[in-house]
Amino acid sequence: MPELRQALVSGQWVVIATERAKRPHDFVRPAREGARTNNHCPFCEGNEVMTPPEVMAYRLDGSRPNRPGWQLRVVPNLYPAFVPSKNGLGSRKVGLYNTMEAVGVHEVLINSPDHYSDVGRLAVDDVDRLIRAYVDRYLAHKDRHHIEYIHVIVNHGREAGASLEHPHAQLFGLPLVSGVIERELQRASKYYQDTGTCVFCHMIEEELKIGDRLVLDNGRFVVVTPFASAFPFEMWVLPKAHRSNFEEMDGDERRAFAVALRETLARLEIGLNDPPFNYYVHTSPCKQETREYYHWHLEILPKLAVAAGLELGAGVFINTAQPEAAAAFLRQVELKV
Amino acid sequence: MPELRQALVSGQWVVIATERAKRPHDFVRPAREGARTNNHCPFCEGNEVMTPPEVMAYRLDGSRPNRPGWQLRVVPNLYPAFVPSKNGLGSRKVGLYNTMEAVGVHEVLINSPDHYSDVGRLAVDDVDRLIRAYVDRYLAHKDRHHIEYIHVIVNHGREAGASLEHPHAQLFGLPLVSGVIERELQRASKYYQDTGTCVFCHMIEEELKIGDRLVLDNGRFVVVTPFASAFPFEMWVLPKAHRSNFEEMDGDERRAFAVALRETLARLEIGLNDPPFNYYVHTSPCKQETREYYHWHLEILPKLAVAAGLELGAGVFINTAQPEAAAAFLRQVELKV
Repeated sequence: MPELRQALVSGQWVVIATERAKRPHDFVRPAREGARTNNHCPFCEGNEVMTPPEVMAYRLDGSRPNRPGWQLRVVPNLYPAFVPSKNGLGSRKVGLYNTMEAVGVHEVLINSPDHYSDVGRLAVDDVDRLIRAYVDRYLAHKDRHHIEYIHVIVNHGREAGASLEHPHAQLFGLPLVSGVIERELQRASKYYQDTGTCVFCHMIEEELKIGDRLVLDNGRFVVVTPFASAFPFEMWVLPKAHRSNFEEMDGDERRAFAVALRETLARLEIGLNDPPFNYYVHTSPCKQETREYYHWHLEILPKLAVAAGLELGAGVFINTAQPEAAAAFLRQVELKV
Repeated sequence: MPELRQALVSGQWVVIATERAKRPHDFVRPAREGARTNNHCPFCEGNEVMTPPEVMAYRLDGSRPNRPGWQLRVVPNLYPAFVPSKNGLGSRKVGLYNTMEAVGVHEVLINSPDHYSDVGRLAVDDVDRLIRAYVDRYLAHKDRHHIEYIHVIVNHGREAGASLEHPHAQLFGLPLVSGVIERELQRASKYYQDTGTCVFCHMIEEELKIGDRLVLDNGRFVVVTPFASAFPFEMWVLPKAHRSNFEEMDGDERRAFAVALRETLARLEIGLNDPPFNYYVHTSPCKQETREYYHWHLEILPKLAVAAGLELGAGVFINTAQPEAAAAFLRQVELKV
């Protein structure tokens, strides 16, 4: 009998399929069509002139901006979805409807000069540098006017929306807190009011006790396949100590996070043969006090299924991979250390 | 400057892109890879034995169940996501989490014996019969125990989640009202309390007045590209007269709806060269009184973009097609009558 599971944080219902269930091995991807190529890649070293001028870079001593010699480089998105404004939000009514200018920030964080620098393949030091860049850009924008939420994402693979292959993250400074994020905050706040506990802390405690959905635990961070995963092989990376704000990590925590994220993505890449995926950080809004009830984390959504009429129209998901089976599979992946 | 638009009904925010905007013609699909084929299709006439036994069919006089001679056929889904139960919902707590058996209904409505019977290519009589089947199955299930919402969908094309090519709809009898639907009902109810008007009626009035986003108006139904369309070429088909419940259409309304739906999908198919899409009916829950504030409609979501880290993680969509340009393009498509 298929089972309906409710996600603890979002409240979303998911059918864990039985009649149409697949085994974890069924999700292993066939070989990619066409090899990756770094021809004409605007993010490769030596092609700095192909991007807008950098807004930040970690560079070797003596190298000049927008020239080779960088380790990590941040540039404005060439086709920004959100742009800075000096004139405020320009909120207005158009007839019945609400509209505003898409004021904000849209940056690209290039992992490394190397075209094949997927997070799961980098050295820990390199992943640590990457996370430092996420935090640095977060801090650069969080106090700015009209920036209410900072959303850091990675789209990996064409099917997951990546238009360029060279590994990179995108940072959106958004003028509003809405949708998924708003609902997650509301439910976490309600849970805290009702129980006096952070819902994420509660979930971590439960998952450590049960163990079936645990992918890894490195002391400071845990990675789980959530009980009501909407997507096959969905994973969450959570700090074990309660912390609401991503940007407040200290150096030790950052390194432990880098270790956890790198290992998680290596398990996914090796185990399923480099599937497309999205990941993003969920953290507190820039200008709201959520210290007691919110708990930052990173969500990884592999793109192994299509959201169709049931998912889009009713918001009920069918997941053909049992989260417990996915976690067991991922735990057993042999890493090339 | 890109523009943020808020959907009137759902409240969702969408960036209407300018920097990365495309022209409507850019969405025309290249020719399909591989022709469609009716080899071994379980939904074609003569292959009735390949499906579970039919639960309903419209048949020519004298033909026998599960044999050729049908015009439209309804069978249980071979791999149901929801299944009937005699034992109730089996709701329970698993540790911290809520779970229940996926009690309900999951049926397949096969458009016609013809493998190429896409709605946009059928005769009006055939589309009318199809809508009659949606309504008949709706009525067959709506009073059943544990069925709270009936969700009728079509997935067209592999990229939109169709696993079988032969045109068909799916009906889900769900044991709960959740997600997208619950939020839409709540917001419509709130709008009615605040203004004394149905939000959909208000929207229709506005769209008829402005005209820019109107795809067609056949007297009883209008088709629009919503102001804050989240997807390129998103369209809504709405009855002009206020009606909360899909299944309460009379014969004249049903025919007018069939005419509108058929023409809309023909415009989409011819204009963009048969893109993949999902459509679904949004209507009132089976056992809730929503007569005053809700207004049933059908939403069509072409699959012309990928939901990535911004959409999935923040619930903010980027739409690279301006709804007004999409509507103008669709109005100009030449139909082969």
